[in-house]
Amino acid sequence: MRMERGLEAVSAYIDAHSQKAVEDLCELCRQPSVSTTHVGIEEMARLIQARLDRAGLKTQRFETTHNPIIYGELKGKGPRTLLFYNHYDVQPPDPVEDWVSPPFEPTLRDGHVFARGATDNKGNIISRLAALEAFLAVRGELPCTVKYMIEGNEEMSSPVIGPFVEGHRELLAADGCVWEDSSSEHVPVLALGNKGILYIELRCRTANVDFHSSHAPIYENAAWRLVWALSTMKDRDENILVEGFFDDVAPLTPREREILAKVPPYDGAHRREKFDIRRFLLDLPDGKLPERHLTSPTLNIAGIWGGYTGKGRKTIVTGQAAAKVDCRLVADQDPQKIMACIRRHLDKHGFGDIEVVNMGHGSFPSKSDPDSDIVKACERACRRVYGQDPPVNPFGTGSTPVWSVIRHLKIPVVSTGVGKLTARTHSANENLKVADLIQGAKYMAAILEEFGAT
Amino acid sequence: MRMERGLEAVSAYIDAHSQKAVEDLCELCRQPSVSTTHVGIEEMARLIQARLDRAGLKTQRFETTHNPIIYGELKGKGPRTLLFYNHYDVQPPDPVEDWVSPPFEPTLRDGHVFARGATDNKGNIISRLAALEAFLAVRGELPCTVKYMIEGNEEMSSPVIGPFVEGHRELLAADGCVWEDSSSEHVPVLALGNKGILYIELRCRTANVDFHSSHAPIYENAAWRLVWALSTMKDRDENILVEGFFDDVAPLTPREREILAKVPPYDGAHRREKFDIRRFLLDLPDGKLPERHLTSPTLNIAGIWGGYTGKGRKTIVTGQAAAKVDCRLVADQDPQKIMACIRRHLDKHGFGDIEVVNMGHGSFPSKSDPDSDIVKACERACRRVYGQDPPVNPFGTGSTPVWSVIRHLKIPVVSTGVGKLTARTHSANENLKVADLIQGAKYMAAILEEFGAT
Repeated sequence: MRMERGLEAVSAYIDAHSQKAVEDLCELCRQPSVSTTHVGIEEMARLIQARLDRAGLKTQRFETTHNPIIYGELKGKGPRTLLFYNHYDVQPPDPVEDWVSPPFEPTLRDGHVFARGATDNKGNIISRLAALEAFLAVRGELPCTVKYMIEGNEEMSSPVIGPFVEGHRELLAADGCVWEDSSSEHVPVLALGNKGILYIELRCRTANVDFHSSHAPIYENAAWRLVWALSTMKDRDENILVEGFFDDVAPLTPREREILAKVPPYDGAHRREKFDIRRFLLDLPDGKLPERHLTSPTLNIAGIWGGYTGKGRKTIVTGQAAAKVDCRLVADQDPQKIMACIRRHLDKHGFGDIEVVNMGHGSFPSKSDPDSDIVKACERACRRVYGQDPPVNPFGTGSTPVWSVIRHLKIPVVSTGVGKLTARTHSANENLKVADLIQGAKYMAAILEEFGAT
Repeated sequence: MRMERGLEAVSAYIDAHSQKAVEDLCELCRQPSVSTTHVGIEEMARLIQARLDRAGLKTQRFETTHNPIIYGELKGKGPRTLLFYNHYDVQPPDPVEDWVSPPFEPTLRDGHVFARGATDNKGNIISRLAALEAFLAVRGELPCTVKYMIEGNEEMSSPVIGPFVEGHRELLAADGCVWEDSSSEHVPVLALGNKGILYIELRCRTANVDFHSSHAPIYENAAWRLVWALSTMKDRDENILVEGFFDDVAPLTPREREILAKVPPYDGAHRREKFDIRRFLLDLPDGKLPERHLTSPTLNIAGIWGGYTGKGRKTIVTGQAAAKVDCRLVADQDPQKIMACIRRHLDKHGFGDIEVVNMGHGSFPSKSDPDSDIVKACERACRRVYGQDPPVNPFGTGSTPVWSVIRHLKIPVVSTGVGKLTARTHSANENLKVADLIQGAKYMAAILEEFGAT
């Protein structure tokens, strides 16, 4: 009974200080922090560290090959430790002319804060800090120990978070992790796991020039070779033919199948019309789309080019051609092993001359136990604050670095937060509803309380 | 004996008036006539008509859907009629900064005239007019009737010459035709026939957007569909699999095989090094290259594109992709029938959604009898003027509109003229050696004499 009463007091404190939370959010949003263009990063890193200091956390700054990671820690009452992950960098604000108010001048309109980063990810940072500060003000201590890492390269695919976690296992040791956010329609979604990714370029070069196409009878055409090579990798029934590609795919567990069965069918008619598509892949019916979407690895052509691609006619034998290929991977596929499989496949099929170039750090797929303590704590917290069960998505389709925590710290991770589908993250006029920020702070407080009590 | 003596006198006249020929060439070259940009076309058409008038031909100007065609005619002594084809338009002079002297300020250097059009095609026009004028001055008449058509869109693939010839069969009726030019190493080459061409785009569209590639498991990818469609059209052993593609290919005649057997092997080692190629198509040995080059129809990818083709990574499911495909055709293939075969092929293989777009007038392939009177007249003329036999190439690999004369007028056509491989046609510093212009005029005079005597 003490716990219940206590959380109500914490929530009341959050309500009473809601104006302060909005000001805190505006303070962070006023500071540009665009990792792509490196605008305001240093100032933002300092601001974030100062803000964690102010909240009472013991902070450290870690330099990386890219932007610094700010770390904070505060001991709690219970024996449990919760790790928070957020990021202080934001997407570029372009196109700036589409913003109603300037992207780095936070503006309150219709009960929403409009600013780049309002939801992604500064709103999430503030909702968590507001929860911590409410506990400290009302009780003088947290229900559990909190560790907090905030990085500065999330919008550039987080090249540093994997090595950082791997190199700081003791520092970061925890019992569960709450990731940055999850887009919600009404109540927060609990998103578990992620797909991995391998991004490569296949480059074919048959000559140092493009020949006049009257020479097509005697010279090899790089575009044809690339077409033939690709056609050996996946057949038109969408079967990936690369030997070994599926070797490490973990079968779905009975519990995963149970969760999958509950995912409602996609609204195929709506998508067909909206995107003017001929059909879904393999003519899949609506009811089969979720399983295929959530659990299938892919071998996708993200781009292909060669020869003359302008208007009208030019008659050449293409001397160079290339394709960008991204593979979304599922547990327990390994991007490096998949790349090796593709190399072997091309060699075996007579395409040893086609270069396979890794276009950046791959990322591993991961799964997180849908019945873990942190997931259950989030479910209970959601029921307490929002009055209903959160949707659980155990098969993330994006390629976040969630895997690095699961893999290196061996703890479950759940991504959840204040973001709504209408928040326009990454677009002009990004926003966060003030009421969602405050309710999100209460939700975070409830998670801390519930997790501390397990 | 009279003929011999007579031609010597004609040649002597040409020599005596060589300075005049150079001035005539410079007059034409000073007038820009770029069909692509339509610069100077009207002025050039008038200049050419005036020049034919001055030479004593009865001229007419024909308007077309593009640039005017200038026609001239002069009755000769003998019953035979020879048709000349040339063009008064030129390639754009770009890059202008690479020219030693300005492209439209003809300049004499080291015994060469440097100017855009010096060889292609104004030098050829002047060599022919100098021959006509020499006959008229020395003998008061030509050895045969001459008809002369000079068009203004050759550098834009001659869209008007086919319809013009078809619509003026009586006007143009002749016993043989000498085409614009042929690139030579030492003595003029006699080039017969041409390959036809069909130029199409295959366009695939699976959605009105590019999807985030996390959706690759459920949406069709236009690049993949295009790759699969193309891979059904030609296999990696270079076999064209489009049903009906070869139906109309005329078998080689014994005489053609005889001529082919005399074509020397290509210098494979030189080309390998120069173009840094892995190998020739199908690892063909040097001795097999000429036959393959000269007699094979092709299905060539001139360009392919879809999705993201910039630097770095972008993860999308490609919603649109396309390929430019050119087919070089041999006698008696028909571009429209080949296009219909490709359409049927795609439909039959389940690619009915892929659009086949004709990217401009196709052109027919043609063959010209290597033993015809006009070829024999050119051979004899070459021996008289250059002291040796001309190389005969009975299998043109380009796609000139030679076919329109062969098809509509039913007469043999041979392309020959003053152009050397070193003339830099289509490039900066195009030139013509003055000695080649004068010898070329004598060669044309000898052709008129020899053809008139047959």
